[in-house]
Amino acid sequence: MTAEIIAVGTELLTGAVTNTNAREISEALHAIGITVGYHTTVGDDPRALRSALAAARERAEILITTGGLGPTYDDVTKDILCDVFEQKLEFHEEVAEKIRAFYETSLHTPMPENNLRLAWLPVGCAVFDNPVGTAAGCAFEEGGVHIVMLPGPPYEMRTMLHAHAIPYLRGLSHEVTLSHDLMTFGIRESRIDELLHDRMASMTNPTLAPYAKPSEVCVRSTAHAASAQEAEALLRPVLEEVRRILGDFVYGMDVASLPEACFHLLKEQGLTFATAESCTGGMIAQKITAFPGSSAVYRGGVVSYWSEVKRDALDVPWEIIEKFGAVSDPCARAMAEGARRLTGADLAVSVTGVAGPDSDERGNPVGLVYIALAAKEGTWCRKTENGNRRRDLIREVSVNHAYDMIRRYLTDLPIE
Amino acid sequence: MTAEIIAVGTELLTGAVTNTNAREISEALHAIGITVGYHTTVGDDPRALRSALAAARERAEILITTGGLGPTYDDVTKDILCDVFEQKLEFHEEVAEKIRAFYETSLHTPMPENNLRLAWLPVGCAVFDNPVGTAAGCAFEEGGVHIVMLPGPPYEMRTMLHAHAIPYLRGLSHEVTLSHDLMTFGIRESRIDELLHDRMASMTNPTLAPYAKPSEVCVRSTAHAASAQEAEALLRPVLEEVRRILGDFVYGMDVASLPEACFHLLKEQGLTFATAESCTGGMIAQKITAFPGSSAVYRGGVVSYWSEVKRDALDVPWEIIEKFGAVSDPCARAMAEGARRLTGADLAVSVTGVAGPDSDERGNPVGLVYIALAAKEGTWCRKTENGNRRRDLIREVSVNHAYDMIRRYLTDLPIE
Repeated sequence: MTAEIIAVGTELLTGAVTNTNAREISEALHAIGITVGYHTTVGDDPRALRSALAAARERAEILITTGGLGPTYDDVTKDILCDVFEQKLEFHEEVAEKIRAFYETSLHTPMPENNLRLAWLPVGCAVFDNPVGTAAGCAFEEGGVHIVMLPGPPYEMRTMLHAHAIPYLRGLSHEVTLSHDLMTFGIRESRIDELLHDRMASMTNPTLAPYAKPSEVCVRSTAHAASAQEAEALLRPVLEEVRRILGDFVYGMDVASLPEACFHLLKEQGLTFATAESCTGGMIAQKITAFPGSSAVYRGGVVSYWSEVKRDALDVPWEIIEKFGAVSDPCARAMAEGARRLTGADLAVSVTGVAGPDSDERGNPVGLVYIALAAKEGTWCRKTENGNRRRDLIREVSVNHAYDMIRRYLTDLPIE
Repeated sequence: MTAEIIAVGTELLTGAVTNTNAREISEALHAIGITVGYHTTVGDDPRALRSALAAARERAEILITTGGLGPTYDDVTKDILCDVFEQKLEFHEEVAEKIRAFYETSLHTPMPENNLRLAWLPVGCAVFDNPVGTAAGCAFEEGGVHIVMLPGPPYEMRTMLHAHAIPYLRGLSHEVTLSHDLMTFGIRESRIDELLHDRMASMTNPTLAPYAKPSEVCVRSTAHAASAQEAEALLRPVLEEVRRILGDFVYGMDVASLPEACFHLLKEQGLTFATAESCTGGMIAQKITAFPGSSAVYRGGVVSYWSEVKRDALDVPWEIIEKFGAVSDPCARAMAEGARRLTGADLAVSVTGVAGPDSDERGNPVGLVYIALAAKEGTWCRKTENGNRRRDLIREVSVNHAYDMIRRYLTDLPIE
């Protein structure tokens, strides 16, 4: 089945807001085997919305809208959509009740009367509860098109997408579509292509394809079958073979990022870590502390941007900085060891390098970055070169190197 | 004039990549007075692209495409677009020369022959040089539609947008459109609306409108005139009046963020700062170190996630933590003072709070965050409450509070 996503909101067309909803919905649909053919964005503009909906009606089997479900006069999605698809709206008392309750318990204020507009939904639709906001979503079928309406605020959209829309769309098909993502770090997409090419080209069910992200590559396998069990049975040997071919470049399955993989591993093993960051300037710390509950695995660290801070906060010997420079293997090691001592953590990672755009005062080139890991068994250090990469990507890749070293330590793999 | 943006790339429809180009182009067009009517995204799929281009031809005065300009067989934008707009391609030897030179000097490898496809551009078009990649862009007019083609990779797109596309589009009009953005922090959009409402409603040239971002509000004024000078003359009194009404909530004009405003102020005044972060976990540090040259203003800091790290790295007295807790005014002050002592920086900011999703072991509610600033004159502390906000937003707002305190210190405004 092919789908189309229409986002409604003038703030998207003025450039005030990025349409992240389209990406998230596309990713979720892709994972259950639904191909997306078009994204369209229109403003809170009845004429443009009508024209986008009319075009979608002609060509899509699934239509998902986001935005324009709110209580004010410029929230027009439901009205125009029902007009284009020749559907009527009806009042849902149980939806009105939930909105009233949400105002009382979460917003601590009485419901403004215009919110009753939110309880008008298409006749006979499946109602999607909004546990984190007021605008309900819904789904119905008309003229061979399955229509799903979701609210625009990304957090509400995401919650309802996974709680309601994806299960609903899965239910449309007698077939089950299942995907698993093997996440890799340290190997290029073109190399994965070479290694898997013969298998990928000849496979139709499951399919197998790599997706490159800024500093890692996801290998996704997707199977269609009559049941989840059968789909899993189809996927298992493929995933095993990919794991065998890609070896320890694979850092996890169905996990969003290396920091998340490390978070789980550290928690399981009851270990903590610390950080000492120079050119990544707090990014390693920021990634782990984004997870609720991260204090179970992360104690803290130092952002030692100046050499004096490396010395005074991390006890890096000044002789090391003078002799080898702040961007050096010995300095990276001393930073990690210093962070471990300072915090008492089981592990510590450090990063020191030249993020650019200019080389440093010792003539070290942009992109030269050392990443070290200190543990009770000893200290390891990786030297990396990032060629012509830009500042933000050099920082991003270096953060992933640090987490990759933690991951390898925790799973008894070679670290350097 | 109204514009339409068509993005081409299957990676956008599978959800592997977010279409950030559409937002950036929209923002740049909006700033020169061009209204965007539609965003459309299609895959590397000739049929879908043809249908999107045909629709745009009927309704747009300006059409901007991104992506599909590369050298491989699935890069089809130029061919299909020229077909739909009945235009021919011709070979541009000077473009071919530049691509050869780019391969030699930047990529240090000979140019693959398929790259010659990149030198085929529409007859009579304006060629847009790509200083950071190989795919040239271009612009031409056909049947009353002004067409601009830009490459898809965001960094290349952004460079060419500002270097070529915006100047080209400005040149289409005899009128000049100019905008200025007054950036505010600490005041809600609805309050700005109230304060400026009477003026906004009656104004047509310049216009005045607030745009809310996650933790700040931009007030944009846009003027149309025969010359830049005249446009500036129209804007000046409006901007002055807005500044007078919003007072010191305004942190700068035409600056992208509070960290950037602080970066400039610190550099001008030759001062440095340091950080001590608990619940923001490195985000304050990460924001400033994203700027090249940030070592001129930022020395470093501590991510003191555990109380022991607050004590051992920042010398926060253990009695403070025991008596008042880690989330308290005295602890925030001691953290900032400790970071200032440790690094020798002129200023230090600290953050300690409950980012959620759960309250802390002392029963402090989610969203309670203390932010402190230490300087030679003394230490200031703000207590903030974030109600029902989510973890990521609580962290984001707290980071902005820290930078707002630095900004106020540096501009002699009340800090707390």
